[in-house]
Amino acid sequence: MSLSHLETQLRSVLAATAVTADVQIDMDRERRCGFPEVVYGPGKTPAAIRDVFLKQQTAGQNSFATRVTVEQAEFVMRDLPTAIHNPVARTLTQRNRDPEIQGRVIVVSAGTSDRPIAEEALETCRWMGCETDLVLDIGVAGPQRLLAQRHRLAHGDAIVVVAGMEGALPSVVAGWVSVPVIAVPTSVGYGAHLGGIAPLLGMLNSCAANVAVVNIDAGFKGGYLASLIARKPGDATKTAG
Amino acid sequence: MSLSHLETQLRSVLAATAVTADVQIDMDRERRCGFPEVVYGPGKTPAAIRDVFLKQQTAGQNSFATRVTVEQAEFVMRDLPTAIHNPVARTLTQRNRDPEIQGRVIVVSAGTSDRPIAEEALETCRWMGCETDLVLDIGVAGPQRLLAQRHRLAHGDAIVVVAGMEGALPSVVAGWVSVPVIAVPTSVGYGAHLGGIAPLLGMLNSCAANVAVVNIDAGFKGGYLASLIARKPGDATKTAG
Amino acid sequence: MSLSHLETQLRSVLAATAVTADVQIDMDRERRCGFPEVVYGPGKTPAAIRDVFLKQQTAGQNSFATRVTVEQAEFVMRDLPTAIHNPVARTLTQRNRDPEIQGRVIVVSAGTSDRPIAEEALETCRWMGCETDLVLDIGVAGPQRLLAQRHRLAHGDAIVVVAGMEGALPSVVAGWVSVPVIAVPTSVGYGAHLGGIAPLLGMLNSCAANVAVVNIDAGFKGGYLASLIARKPGDATKTAG
Amino acid sequence: MSLSHLETQLRSVLAATAVTADVQIDMDRERRCGFPEVVYGPGKTPAAIRDVFLKQQTAGQNSFATRVTVEQAEFVMRDLPTAIHNPVARTLTQRNRDPEIQGRVIVVSAGTSDRPIAEEALETCRWMGCETDLVLDIGVAGPQRLLAQRHRLAHGDAIVVVAGMEGALPSVVAGWVSVPVIAVPTSVGYGAHLGGIAPLLGMLNSCAANVAVVNIDAGFKGGYLASLIARKPGDATKTAG
Amino acid sequence: MSLSHLETQLRSVLAATAVTADVQIDMDRERRCGFPEVVYGPGKTPAAIRDVFLKQQTAGQNSFATRVTVEQAEFVMRDLPTAIHNPVARTLTQRNRDPEIQGRVIVVSAGTSDRPIAEEALETCRWMGCETDLVLDIGVAGPQRLLAQRHRLAHGDAIVVVAGMEGALPSVVAGWVSVPVIAVPTSVGYGAHLGGIAPLLGMLNSCAANVAVVNIDAGFKGGYLASLIARKPGDATKTAG
Amino acid sequence: MSLSHLETQLRSVLAATAVTADVQIDMDRERRCGFPEVVYGPGKTPAAIRDVFLKQQTAGQNSFATRVTVEQAEFVMRDLPTAIHNPVARTLTQRNRDPEIQGRVIVVSAGTSDRPIAEEALETCRWMGCETDLVLDIGVAGPQRLLAQRHRLAHGDAIVVVAGMEGALPSVVAGWVSVPVIAVPTSVGYGAHLGGIAPLLGMLNSCAANVAVVNIDAGFKGGYLASLIARKPGDATKTAG
Amino acid sequence: MSLSHLETQLRSVLAATAVTADVQIDMDRERRCGFPEVVYGPGKTPAAIRDVFLKQQTAGQNSFATRVTVEQAEFVMRDLPTAIHNPVARTLTQRNRDPEIQGRVIVVSAGTSDRPIAEEALETCRWMGCETDLVLDIGVAGPQRLLAQRHRLAHGDAIVVVAGMEGALPSVVAGWVSVPVIAVPTSVGYGAHLGGIAPLLGMLNSCAANVAVVNIDAGFKGGYLASLIARKPGDATKTAG
Amino acid sequence: MSLSHLETQLRSVLAATAVTADVQIDMDRERRCGFPEVVYGPGKTPAAIRDVFLKQQTAGQNSFATRVTVEQAEFVMRDLPTAIHNPVARTLTQRNRDPEIQGRVIVVSAGTSDRPIAEEALETCRWMGCETDLVLDIGVAGPQRLLAQRHRLAHGDAIVVVAGMEGALPSVVAGWVSVPVIAVPTSVGYGAHLGGIAPLLGMLNSCAANVAVVNIDAGFKGGYLASLIARKPGDATKTAG
Repeated sequence: MSLSHLETQLRSVLAATAVTADVQIDMDRERRCGFPEVVYGPGKTPAAIRDVFLKQQTAGQNSFATRVTVEQAEFVMRDLPTAIHNPVARTLTQRNRDPEIQGRVIVVSAGTSDRPIAEEALETCRWMGCETDLVLDIGVAGPQRLLAQRHRLAHGDAIVVVAGMEGALPSVVAGWVSVPVIAVPTSVGYGAHLGGIAPLLGMLNSCAANVAVVNIDAGFKGGYLASLIARKPGDATKTAG
Repeated sequence: MSLSHLETQLRSVLAATAVTADVQIDMDRERRCGFPEVVYGPGKTPAAIRDVFLKQQTAGQNSFATRVTVEQAEFVMRDLPTAIHNPVARTLTQRNRDPEIQGRVIVVSAGTSDRPIAEEALETCRWMGCETDLVLDIGVAGPQRLLAQRHRLAHGDAIVVVAGMEGALPSVVAGWVSVPVIAVPTSVGYGAHLGGIAPLLGMLNSCAANVAVVNIDAGFKGGYLASLIARKPGDATKTAG
Repeated sequence: MSLSHLETQLRSVLAATAVTADVQIDMDRERRCGFPEVVYGPGKTPAAIRDVFLKQQTAGQNSFATRVTVEQAEFVMRDLPTAIHNPVARTLTQRNRDPEIQGRVIVVSAGTSDRPIAEEALETCRWMGCETDLVLDIGVAGPQRLLAQRHRLAHGDAIVVVAGMEGALPSVVAGWVSVPVIAVPTSVGYGAHLGGIAPLLGMLNSCAANVAVVNIDAGFKGGYLASLIARKPGDATKTAG
Repeated sequence: MSLSHLETQLRSVLAATAVTADVQIDMDRERRCGFPEVVYGPGKTPAAIRDVFLKQQTAGQNSFATRVTVEQAEFVMRDLPTAIHNPVARTLTQRNRDPEIQGRVIVVSAGTSDRPIAEEALETCRWMGCETDLVLDIGVAGPQRLLAQRHRLAHGDAIVVVAGMEGALPSVVAGWVSVPVIAVPTSVGYGAHLGGIAPLLGMLNSCAANVAVVNIDAGFKGGYLASLIARKPGDATKTAG
Repeated sequence: MSLSHLETQLRSVLAATAVTADVQIDMDRERRCGFPEVVYGPGKTPAAIRDVFLKQQTAGQNSFATRVTVEQAEFVMRDLPTAIHNPVARTLTQRNRDPEIQGRVIVVSAGTSDRPIAEEALETCRWMGCETDLVLDIGVAGPQRLLAQRHRLAHGDAIVVVAGMEGALPSVVAGWVSVPVIAVPTSVGYGAHLGGIAPLLGMLNSCAANVAVVNIDAGFKGGYLASLIARKPGDATKTAG
Repeated sequence: MSLSHLETQLRSVLAATAVTADVQIDMDRERRCGFPEVVYGPGKTPAAIRDVFLKQQTAGQNSFATRVTVEQAEFVMRDLPTAIHNPVARTLTQRNRDPEIQGRVIVVSAGTSDRPIAEEALETCRWMGCETDLVLDIGVAGPQRLLAQRHRLAHGDAIVVVAGMEGALPSVVAGWVSVPVIAVPTSVGYGAHLGGIAPLLGMLNSCAANVAVVNIDAGFKGGYLASLIARKPGDATKTAG
Repeated sequence: MSLSHLETQLRSVLAATAVTADVQIDMDRERRCGFPEVVYGPGKTPAAIRDVFLKQQTAGQNSFATRVTVEQAEFVMRDLPTAIHNPVARTLTQRNRDPEIQGRVIVVSAGTSDRPIAEEALETCRWMGCETDLVLDIGVAGPQRLLAQRHRLAHGDAIVVVAGMEGALPSVVAGWVSVPVIAVPTSVGYGAHLGGIAPLLGMLNSCAANVAVVNIDAGFKGGYLASLIARKPGDATKTAG
Repeated sequence: MSLSHLETQLRSVLAATAVTADVQIDMDRERRCGFPEVVYGPGKTPAAIRDVFLKQQTAGQNSFATRVTVEQAEFVMRDLPTAIHNPVARTLTQRNRDPEIQGRVIVVSAGTSDRPIAEEALETCRWMGCETDLVLDIGVAGPQRLLAQRHRLAHGDAIVVVAGMEGALPSVVAGWVSVPVIAVPTSVGYGAHLGGIAPLLGMLNSCAANVAVVNIDAGFKGGYLASLIARKPGDATKTAG
């Protein structure tokens, strides 16, 4: 790559950083990484989130925020009434143009208590334009449940497995499929669970080769990676970096 | 229990402590706990182990030592040529009378590398008079292996599951059986395995109700507990305490 | 085991998963593992718990829920007025048929503060049809208390020891008996107690061979394993898996 | 999926487990998961590894072993002289048929000391039929190195970043690309590095959404996942599970 | 140093400890260490803080308190109405004489949520008489932001980098400058972040040689050290100890 | 205390620091703290240890070194042939005057493997002029052993309990006596023992009020503290500080 | 000791356990260990604490409770109006006979925030009949404070040092005195303080030989041990065990 | 900063990366950061180190390598006979031009065993052109040693304190001076020292405001930072980044 090419790229990058009162927005993110910048709610004022959403709307980009409170969501929706708030997933989605639907992600959840994290993963996948399927309440200790649902696993381009307790489910799922499994440990448990450290360690030590791991309770990241994998990236995207 | 009864018991206990040069032996252990004292090899001189074995032979008790080195085993076998050394299990067994065979323990091992710990569990069960079955190389990521061997699990009174890596196997086994499962985490693994802490935490957080856990690499303890469970204790034993 | 036998089993398993709005119930659990599925309260709606209990009532199975809040319990009891709520143990029990009483479990508790966990273990044992005895407030630093109660320990088929602080009690109890001891560390303590990690590590390193360990505060699991051990399993149960 | 279909699948699975003296081989793995079973060297006898390779050769499958010692490699190569041993990567590869080349994986390495893990990832990718590119010695503290090599990153379908020390490199790389980044922390470091825990935690907390993590020093797993992602799976593979 | 010199110093030190009802104040600190004693708010009564401020006012010393609550600040300001309370930084500053302005510290903050800690550092620098510049919202995953602001980094005598998440920013900043970087990890994050342990470990393992680290959330200490570095100490200060 | 008094003391302190080539010796320690400085062997050259011993001999002080290797001990004994080397305790003792015998310390050891640490404690007590008694091989799981030896515990002014495994012995001993118990955890154990962390945590959480703890394997410190306690300090010593 | 002597002792022990509704009281503790049983407040009902106090009053024993809430204290004081509640120390003291004053304990506290723990230690010492002195606000970073107060340290038979933050104060104090120092780490701190683990580790690694450690925030235990040490035990006490 | 300026800088950076067979060298580092790149020995071949030294010699830059083995050093010195190897510090220094001497760093070491790390810090300071002073064997428990050497501390522009054990020395030193203190924890210790974690945590929690911390055993980094601080940076250096 020539230096003049580099200069051109940097110039466009510098131009694309939109500064609001509180927060810098990376308006160039979609060109560079394939998707617009996502807002992480905690610690931000409702106005800051709204400003990002409005800025992205003006630019024709879709908006997505995670870990938003009810107060944050309701504040933003006063100005953006078509935004969709999923209170279980704690997400806020604003579509300013329809994504091209491509790829299919299966989200598997071990127990009822892991549902909010599974929903966060699902909403992320939908925002990124993937088809999704949610397979709930598949525990390791009830092996017939997995067998009964196994055919649904076979139709995904990537699988997100959300599990607390001992975190054994990703290994068990991974043994039946040929696609990448993104394991999301959750903080659901008690005692020697250590707030999710137990399933995190378990998943990192998975004897299945096709299991990668993200942070505890990181439903968004699990969904994001699975969607990146599930979508078949075209040349334009690949060479954008 | 009257105090005179207590006095009688304490008198017998005090009389039953055999002191050799190096080590005290609890000759009353068999009466009180059902089995003679077991020798833990590390840090003991070969002579000390031999002295315990000889003392127990004189008293008509069976002997068992764990974690013995080849040197320790060979030294003892000079005086006790009928003792049996299992170098994989690192155990030394001396039978001075035949145990009553009772109960059946299945030992399940996740991987080839866990075999020494599985063998230690097996030797313990045999010394305690249980029938045993060893089911090797049943990994979580190869689910058909477990399905293929599942009928063998159904014939145990207790099951010992030895597993390193993420330690998911006990949960998976426990979901198919109605008997107690004693989980033995092993130090086989690397990185975030933390010398066995990962499977230990996983097993403690097992979503299966019938899983109890012992220390990392504690094949002896796993076998001991499973054998206690598998044997149907008579009244005499139960009231001995 | 022939494949046709396997097919038959899987068919019955698949048929036995009852799906309510929120939660899947494993109606086949009793046949496979000896006892019906137990409900873990946290994260479930009161309606979900009630639905499981009603489904099990229809099937003639007994119901048991742990870690239930007062709100959950009262909601369920509107439809199932004969259910029994133990607010100290945080359990909810519904008997739809009388269990066969078999086996005896002794629950030993180190201090007053460990009582809720001890009660959870006791309620579990009762639901599973075991006789029980509760030995309270036996601390290691008051050795005469253990001596005074020792005869009660001698009449159990299995013993559950619930202890916080340094968690030394299981080792001390185990030295006097010949039956398996299930140790339940509790989160009662402060400072270097680390929320129960201190007694958990202590119990895992117990020098007594007949001590197995479950998760911190896992009174249910302690009671479940002790009851499995205390009951003498018949052939039907053993071959069900 | 009908039960008869399930029966058919299980039958083929049961038939496909080849048992050698020491080790069970999952001959059905390639059909089910897309690639044959890979041998993990530690704890296995040289003969066991050779037997697996021979069995796979007979079946026309390609063979791959990781963490092999020089002794293990040389023993196997006596019977399989075309096997290729990479002593830096500690891998042994035997090709019995040519793979279809598909997809491109970039492996980025932070420092010279991380090279063995990077090589393990590379060999895995090659065995799986991916084109590869190795970008060496790109440290965070020398930012111009990354800028100078950035165009090479743009041509991968997936990127593996191998890094010890503080493990910041995956975040930095991920900010420039749109494809998934598999982060492999290494045990290269000292003191508060804690054998790789420091970069592992850093990578799990990456502020970049497209970073997933595998175990410390798990070059094989990093390469395996990246290759699965880079290859465009056909329908046959996807529905095989 | 002669003993008579030592005696003289100790005499002045002993005389300079002002005892209020609650707290001892080290009135000699400014002479010995260059700056008056700073009040750490938590656990102190509002009256105790006020008494220290009044005592320092009488002695012509400037006052500074960190981690003060609104209640503490308002109580003190009744008697010291010119004190300045920064509620985001949780600091209270009272100037009784103007400091000589000397040196320039740049404070860099990774994310919006880290702002309170960055503000604490800034207020500390100002109280110590340094010029300051705050560079906000420079994340590692948005590399162009750092490039766009890089010229501002070049004008500091020392840099404070405040970062949560994986804590990679100090390394990245340090690679572009020749002055010392004081890294302040924050507790902003979740899961495997471990309340700031993840970025703390990352920063300690920084591959950049010019990075030193202070405690998690220790904005005050970060600012204090950077200011000490930025100011060119005269001989009088240096020989005061 | 007047400043002139302070000056006098400091003058004597400054004069009493003897500098050898390698190491500074605190020749004033005995006056200030009651006993001469003790040499910690690791990392010191044999010559450095010898020099300290010779310097102390000239001053009429007794010498003591811990954790010495055989090489270090033999080197020193060439010049100080009356020094006594205890290879189990790894101590080297040189008496240049007879200590006044005062107080009695009981050292209790849980297992054979803890003996080196117990011996280190014993040698320390003897060097400090205490009578000693060693009670070996008193395990928690063999309760009769403690009962049988309990009368020996009653004759100590302080007790040192050395224990690995779960570290329960200090609590059990402390429940029978009225004197302070110094608990010394040892690194003897495996798995979840974590190199002594398990017994360390257990001892810190002891439910007995009269248990204080020192570092893992710190036999010297255990013996030192017990001896300080056992000896009845006269006024001269107390006011020396 | 003869068995008949043992029987006599056990008989008196068994007789001395007073059972109230909620709690067992060890009425023999004073004879055996020198002081009556102390009540640990958390988890106990106010009525249970009152019952213990009344039982001890009847027996002419002094009462002491730690970690009591205001509610618990006020409830007990309705029946025992002469009990003294120290709300800072969270202790409740009832004197039913005057203790013999003997020995002197100095309690040293590093910072204002550590005062509650220091007060708990002080109240314990007073209840046990020791003279006390409280030296407040002696930090390591203000070295002149320690020098100014050093003469007060010289008059103690034992010293309790209460310190949070880095916990360096016990080492510094111990270097100036010849009596045992009991170090009490506190949970006062933040970030890498880990709730007291940082000062706990520091104190365990103290380079001073005369420092023993108790649990984090264990003011009671610190005071108890220091008082045991400070009092010169008579023969009667020593042989009571 | 204009983009054309940025382009110019990047061009020079790209040109300045010298690639040898094994290792990339950042020849622009001196211009950008003030000092040439330093070689970290572990994992590098002797030839790679030599090549970097030769390349830097050609460019007139000074060379420095840390953690070199005797083998590495001797290999390099065959081609660079004027290089100086300090085997205690494990450093290799090659001066190709004389540095301007500026600033003074005091290195303080707690114990004899910490000397290698202290020497590494010293060699680093010398290579960077600072005057140095080494104050050895200043322990916290021997307070007079610090008092006796305190005047030497007063003449430094920055202080490096190297300490193992509990790591209290930096706080104690920092209380006497007005310049920044860089604390270097060492792995010297045992048991609860945890390989240096204990002093690391202690130093991070130092109650002194002027203490920053680097990694365990990071003598190089401690010396590097102190030297950066001690030297008064001119404008050229500051604006180079």
